[in-house]
Amino acid sequence: MNANSPIALLTDFGLADAYVGIMKGVMAAISPSSQFIDISHAIAPQNVHQAAYILATSYRYFPKETVFLVVVDPGVGTARDPIAVATEHGTYVAPDNGVLSYVLKEVAAHQAAILANPEYLLPEPSQTFHGRDIFSPAAAYLASGVPIDALGPPASKLVSLPDPVLEMTPGRMQGEVLHIDHFGNVITSIGAFSWMTDRLVLTPRFGAGALAEPVVVNPATCLVHFKDTPIGRIHPTYGAVNPGTMIALVGSSGHLEIGINQGSAAEKLGAAIGDPITLHYANDTHLE
Amino acid sequence: MNANSPIALLTDFGLADAYVGIMKGVMAAISPSSQFIDISHAIAPQNVHQAAYILATSYRYFPKETVFLVVVDPGVGTARDPIAVATEHGTYVAPDNGVLSYVLKEVAAHQAAILANPEYLLPEPSQTFHGRDIFSPAAAYLASGVPIDALGPPASKLVSLPDPVLEMTPGRMQGEVLHIDHFGNVITSIGAFSWMTDRLVLTPRFGAGALAEPVVVNPATCLVHFKDTPIGRIHPTYGAVNPGTMIALVGSSGHLEIGINQGSAAEKLGAAIGDPITLHYANDTHLE
Amino acid sequence: MNANSPIALLTDFGLADAYVGIMKGVMAAISPSSQFIDISHAIAPQNVHQAAYILATSYRYFPKETVFLVVVDPGVGTARDPIAVATEHGTYVAPDNGVLSYVLKEVAAHQAAILANPEYLLPEPSQTFHGRDIFSPAAAYLASGVPIDALGPPASKLVSLPDPVLEMTPGRMQGEVLHIDHFGNVITSIGAFSWMTDRLVLTPRFGAGALAEPVVVNPATCLVHFKDTPIGRIHPTYGAVNPGTMIALVGSSGHLEIGINQGSAAEKLGAAIGDPITLHYANDTHLE
Repeated sequence: MNANSPIALLTDFGLADAYVGIMKGVMAAISPSSQFIDISHAIAPQNVHQAAYILATSYRYFPKETVFLVVVDPGVGTARDPIAVATEHGTYVAPDNGVLSYVLKEVAAHQAAILANPEYLLPEPSQTFHGRDIFSPAAAYLASGVPIDALGPPASKLVSLPDPVLEMTPGRMQGEVLHIDHFGNVITSIGAFSWMTDRLVLTPRFGAGALAEPVVVNPATCLVHFKDTPIGRIHPTYGAVNPGTMIALVGSSGHLEIGINQGSAAEKLGAAIGDPITLHYANDTHLE
Repeated sequence: MNANSPIALLTDFGLADAYVGIMKGVMAAISPSSQFIDISHAIAPQNVHQAAYILATSYRYFPKETVFLVVVDPGVGTARDPIAVATEHGTYVAPDNGVLSYVLKEVAAHQAAILANPEYLLPEPSQTFHGRDIFSPAAAYLASGVPIDALGPPASKLVSLPDPVLEMTPGRMQGEVLHIDHFGNVITSIGAFSWMTDRLVLTPRFGAGALAEPVVVNPATCLVHFKDTPIGRIHPTYGAVNPGTMIALVGSSGHLEIGINQGSAAEKLGAAIGDPITLHYANDTHLE
Repeated sequence: MNANSPIALLTDFGLADAYVGIMKGVMAAISPSSQFIDISHAIAPQNVHQAAYILATSYRYFPKETVFLVVVDPGVGTARDPIAVATEHGTYVAPDNGVLSYVLKEVAAHQAAILANPEYLLPEPSQTFHGRDIFSPAAAYLASGVPIDALGPPASKLVSLPDPVLEMTPGRMQGEVLHIDHFGNVITSIGAFSWMTDRLVLTPRFGAGALAEPVVVNPATCLVHFKDTPIGRIHPTYGAVNPGTMIALVGSSGHLEIGINQGSAAEKLGAAIGDPITLHYANDTHLE
């Protein structure tokens, strides 16, 4: 059993440069028994929305005591605050630019601090690499047991991102593409679903997702469109169709996605982040 | 000394998405002191053969108590079994699609189980991400000391891949390209060799490699062809020739490979996985 | 607290192949509680200069007891010695080809050894993968507490790289591009600077950098050129200008760099490693 908490990293730094390794070096000196786990370093440069989505679909699989170090920071060197937020599932260290806002819709925050105490930063922080000089030391001190209120004064009102597009009218939902993965799967803002035998129960997290009651969809009779291209019904798994066939299904993060069994749907559709996706369903089903 | 076994990961998930990080998060919660070591996440999507080869050339350099988590799984969500196999060198967790078959030609399997016990899976496994919901928890429980037979019923007959091409006739061997590495080196199914001063002793692992006796090759007088292109004799090391020169040599995994000192042979030859390679040698040498 | 020292890795092996994972497997068997931290595996193939620069800008952020495993080795299999060097900040394991020379300008070496003792190598080292067979075992034994003089005889005179270009004449410095990072920032040999309110104090590490006294530059009135293209003054941070604007600034490693706020300067300028960069400054400022 390690003495210190694990630290999970999410950045747009890529792995070609030494930036991520340098941050781990800083943290290893402060919290030597923390395990470092990379979530991704391939967020599109400065794309705060994409990082917020990836974090929201990942955090719950990590131990509750994990410290999440999130550095996607178009405003480095400007007035945005560096913050830490302790929640019921994880402690998060990030710039206050909304990158935590999707996670914070799902987990209750106990306490938030502005990273201002120089005792827990590197000496003489640079203007250009706060990941190394401010965020990494803060994450490592938290992982080693320093209480969050030692890091600086309370952060009161945090920046929030606008919700992803999710418009709901009876029998119809319109969403947008949030992410395209390594396999070319096109992942949308329509979610989260759970299977109940032959019915899909939709309880959206985001946007109009502040629904009063869940929506029930029959996966066999509903119809998914990418822009004007009909994709068809919702299938349970890629393995349900032949290689090369494009289908809609509920992906592993609980969102509607479009993929090709052993191929790239994004390439075939020419899909990009932000593109519209529509789900039509029979409006006569209700959850008992 | 860590209390739990290390876990080595081999997948086709890439590192751009959060999939690998999520699997490590799941495992860190179950086996917090296991060290995670990435073998590769750049297997060509769903290429079970390539993964089987990479695993077979890697496993023996890891500690014997390592748990290998191998997720290259074109059949996710279909009927293929998820399995664990305990051997004299490593315990392997993978879909039963043949990805372990090259390793299992080299190491004796003690026990194999189907991953069916829900106590050692995540609750409500998805249809699309068994890496997270089935394989990762199983690997982490094994690393933390759970005995393999607790994970499910015995797996009796495992799926086996066809052997890579390796045809042997007196004075001639024909093989195929198995892998092209980051440097552009073209790695073939002709192997494994060991140097004995000025002779190469060939004791193939695969295919016709079930030879009754080893073959002895004189590296100075044999002749390697890629398709119809003559490459020349077998050299001891890249450093033996000038930069820019293309040569054949015995690579670090014990297989015949073609490379360019400080350049890319794959690019120059237009080589692809599956392309034929031939070795002609004088048939008058014998092993004393 | 881990019992063994952390091991930081810097290679040109890429992450697509199993080479890095295999080295970690070898080391995990020898030093099971060492934490592995990747600095980078994306050094341009066999580019010893780039690796030397990346190492020199990284090492100081790691714990002093770190063992650095550096494998960028165009001469694998030839006569260059494999060495280990113990310093006041880190122990370094590498081929003796100059890759350590920029670090060794900054930290004092206590002791250096040639890796010749077969007890601390893998049995029967290959001619092609010394990273696995020679360097990794040496690094892991050092991390586990084996004294450096047990690894082999003293290494007396180490290979040194030529200094990067840095010509200094009154009022003018000329340097070269050393590295282009993931964001497209163009990093030069002109450095290292420190900010003193409104003045930049330049105390170069390299080249003509063996200056008798520091040079003081006014960042607001100096002028930076990339080749013949004027870039302008030196700014404190990317956030100081609008997105899309190209500026010169002092980067996180203390070197002059050219970047575009939320864009790629390297792409816009067509910059490559080795390109010239010039800094003109008023020659009437002195450090009091």
